Amino acid sequence: MMYTIATLGSHTALQIMKGAKDEGFSTLLITQSDREAFYRRFRFIDDIITISSYGDFPEVQHSISRRHVIVIPHGSFIAYLGIEGNKAISLPYFGNKAVLDWEADRKKQLNWLASAGIRLPRKFSRRDRIDRPVIVKSYGADGGRGYFVAHSQKDFEKKISLFTKKDFIVQEYIVGVPIYLHYYYSPITKTMELLSIDRRYETNVDSLGRMPLAHQERIDITPSFVVVGNSPLSLRESLLPEAYAMAERLVVTSQKLIDERGLFGPFCLETIVTPDQQFYVIEVSCRIVAGTNLFIDSSPYASLLYDEPMSTGRRIARDIKIAHRKGIVDCLVS
Amino acid sequence: MMYTIATLGSHTALQIMKGAKDEGFSTLLITQSDREAFYRRFRFIDDIITISSYGDFPEVQHSISRRHVIVIPHGSFIAYLGIEGNKAISLPYFGNKAVLDWEADRKKQLNWLASAGIRLPRKFSRRDRIDRPVIVKSYGADGGRGYFVAHSQKDFEKKISLFTKKDFIVQEYIVGVPIYLHYYYSPITKTMELLSIDRRYETNVDSLGRMPLAHQERIDITPSFVVVGNSPLSLRESLLPEAYAMAERLVVTSQKLIDERGLFGPFCLETIVTPDQQFYVIEVSCRIVAGTNLFIDSSPYASLLYDEPMSTGRRIARDIKIAHRKGIVDCLVS
Amino acid sequence: MMYTIATLGSHTALQIMKGAKDEGFSTLLITQSDREAFYRRFRFIDDIITISSYGDFPEVQHSISRRHVIVIPHGSFIAYLGIEGNKAISLPYFGNKAVLDWEADRKKQLNWLASAGIRLPRKFSRRDRIDRPVIVKSYGADGGRGYFVAHSQKDFEKKISLFTKKDFIVQEYIVGVPIYLHYYYSPITKTMELLSIDRRYETNVDSLGRMPLAHQERIDITPSFVVVGNSPLSLRESLLPEAYAMAERLVVTSQKLIDERGLFGPFCLETIVTPDQQFYVIEVSCRIVAGTNLFIDSSPYASLLYDEPMSTGRRIARDIKIAHRKGIVDCLVS
Repeated sequence: MMYTIATLGSHTALQIMKGAKDEGFSTLLITQSDREAFYRRFRFIDDIITISSYGDFPEVQHSISRRHVIVIPHGSFIAYLGIEGNKAISLPYFGNKAVLDWEADRKKQLNWLASAGIRLPRKFSRRDRIDRPVIVKSYGADGGRGYFVAHSQKDFEKKISLFTKKDFIVQEYIVGVPIYLHYYYSPITKTMELLSIDRRYETNVDSLGRMPLAHQERIDITPSFVVVGNSPLSLRESLLPEAYAMAERLVVTSQKLIDERGLFGPFCLETIVTPDQQFYVIEVSCRIVAGTNLFIDSSPYASLLYDEPMSTGRRIARDIKIAHRKGIVDCLVS
Repeated sequence: MMYTIATLGSHTALQIMKGAKDEGFSTLLITQSDREAFYRRFRFIDDIITISSYGDFPEVQHSISRRHVIVIPHGSFIAYLGIEGNKAISLPYFGNKAVLDWEADRKKQLNWLASAGIRLPRKFSRRDRIDRPVIVKSYGADGGRGYFVAHSQKDFEKKISLFTKKDFIVQEYIVGVPIYLHYYYSPITKTMELLSIDRRYETNVDSLGRMPLAHQERIDITPSFVVVGNSPLSLRESLLPEAYAMAERLVVTSQKLIDERGLFGPFCLETIVTPDQQFYVIEVSCRIVAGTNLFIDSSPYASLLYDEPMSTGRRIARDIKIAHRKGIVDCLVS
Repeated sequence: MMYTIATLGSHTALQIMKGAKDEGFSTLLITQSDREAFYRRFRFIDDIITISSYGDFPEVQHSISRRHVIVIPHGSFIAYLGIEGNKAISLPYFGNKAVLDWEADRKKQLNWLASAGIRLPRKFSRRDRIDRPVIVKSYGADGGRGYFVAHSQKDFEKKISLFTKKDFIVQEYIVGVPIYLHYYYSPITKTMELLSIDRRYETNVDSLGRMPLAHQERIDITPSFVVVGNSPLSLRESLLPEAYAMAERLVVTSQKLIDERGLFGPFCLETIVTPDQQFYVIEVSCRIVAGTNLFIDSSPYASLLYDEPMSTGRRIARDIKIAHRKGIVDCLVS
């Protein structure tokens, strides 16, 4: 008996399905009916179940439970089902659900990151006077919407009065370049792997730099940070030791703060790297993120660890395969 | 008897020649003599014929006609030979020549795109008052020259008086990020394939964003959009269904508007993606484009479809090989 | 008897070690003790010797000399040991040490580049009046620190008075896009190979373009050019012949100006490409550079030359392997 790997049709589903097929699993996609025709194009998806909206996922669980399914969650699981909806999934769910609350609650997440000795932008509470540029963001995996930048207390007050989100965080605006680090921590081998690195491609902010000044001055553009793509990066080699060390501290700390299993599987550190070559971590995403879609065929970092193409999706499937052989699949799901 | 794949020495010639060789074809390059030494470096080019300028291509046609040549056109064919020059090529020419007029005539192209239900920037005719930022561009495959941006009627009038091109189009300036989608439609299998995605690297506009404001303010830089490179992108997975659907609608519509065969082979949609995640199509290029040169070795999107490296150049050769085996090469050429 | 490939633990060490292992060599890394744990993660590193700082490298030379070591220098060799320190290395050292002085002395380097018919930005001497924007930079492989831009004589005077580096060069600021060309010249086969192309990712200048104008105007950001990453590029095919020709002229000229062997092995031309499609060369780096780290698994340009993944690190090892078989390893080291 072998498992069927299942996920929702969005985000990183192609990578997860292909990786599962490459490792010898059956694959099952649950998708909205308006995307069925799209996903049927790919031969590595064995079976497709359609639902009218992703929020209906709980309703199909019972019907697929006898297929020995393991569900691989990605960003759309949080966006469509919410934290409680994810916790309520009754099928074997890759990863540790206990981590979900620590990721979603921004106070808990910042406490976790700080406890792991990870450098964070200064956080402003409601009473603090804003004495430097800040970024204000609503919380959650909404693909980059709901951000704004304010350069003073006055500017903040003006913009916050127009902001529709009630749940937001105010952080020091770090001047540096964004770098997204994609990891996999295996609870089987107890090893950390940095599999790939990217930067995001965001509309419309990534169009600003191509506009002549005279043009920008005359058009009133409200910057937005909606992620519509990603582009590959390599990292200065002297920064890699800290990139690995941060991730290991985060895992070790999670095993103390959260539970014995802590964080495992794929996760991402969103960082800003400053001119003094320090990582500031903006957020941790505790599952596979979309930037890994660049590296379905290969990545310079994965190629240091594997002699075959190893996407993050395939890496998940590889661990399930190894765990299955050892009879310890329970250690990968919750 | 097997075919020889031939092209002009420029644009995507290396990719086309390598792809043809990987599929088992003989390869022939026709190049200006000043580039002969360069192209002789590559072992996958079996034979090179030199001409003094690309415009002389018609003169060599007769001498190579007995080699069972199939010519693969790329952007330089249009730049150097013009539409009529392409139509006059007597050798088997990959693709449907009937599409050339529909691509080159901007009214026809916009009609085609609009008929396919593709979202376009608002077009301004000569009588329209310019009430928003616009981009003014001369038409044709000239690698990004001959563009300017105007932010008002007054600015437009000032700049158009200095513009040397007579044949231009005025379109709404869409604020969003450029994304180039590279497709292949096979008339043999009737399937659409999204093989890769890139963004362009243009001089000097892509240097503007790295200049401090104080610097930009003091240097009077005329922005230019000359494409000198490309960089790879992945696309948000939830945008892929529409990326595929647009391309299929374009092909189906071409079979109604142009002729029975319509558009097939490689083509590219130049899009701007806005913060509300809509594709605006700026142009369609009805042949292999230079952005595919990034993906000679591999592409994350091609790897979802093929278990071996599949560049756009190789994909063309693959279809010719399949058609040759089936005895239907005629369906690929015109 | 086979050689052991050795390098310092920084810069491009992972690529060099992996490339050496892929070609069948034993590998030895000399690293600072604080990075030992990091480098122990990689199976392709056979042996690690720790030192307290990279400046101590000369002290370990004697102990490893009987292992038939060939040292592969990279950017950190220059940064930590200086030119004289590199010349003093007694182990076989890949490359021609005679080139070091011509690279490090900016007058010699500019003379060399100019003699090779390579286009350079106008250089301003201390007596010249600055009549256009200039870039002022301290010299040496310091990862992008110690640069500033001035737009006039007055601005230059103000900024130079605050500049802490005494050894600097003043060059015309070329408005165009940066492109880094990574070559390998083999003295065995006498062939030039363009293996890959990248652009740098620099903090904080690469964050400027994403900042809204209103934001930039209100925050006083001092631009810095610290390289923390790289991203891949392809080059317009019609520019490749000159990209190759420049590199060949540079090698031929080095054989006249420097010594009979001249420049060989990996090197990099840092270029700015202007809207009229001209290369301006800013600097030559006469060894493997960090941008090649993007291409450990593959590169579109290397795939035109090799049917297997060929990083720059592996290319070095390949030449050593060939030279060893021919009994001419001496021609690769100094």
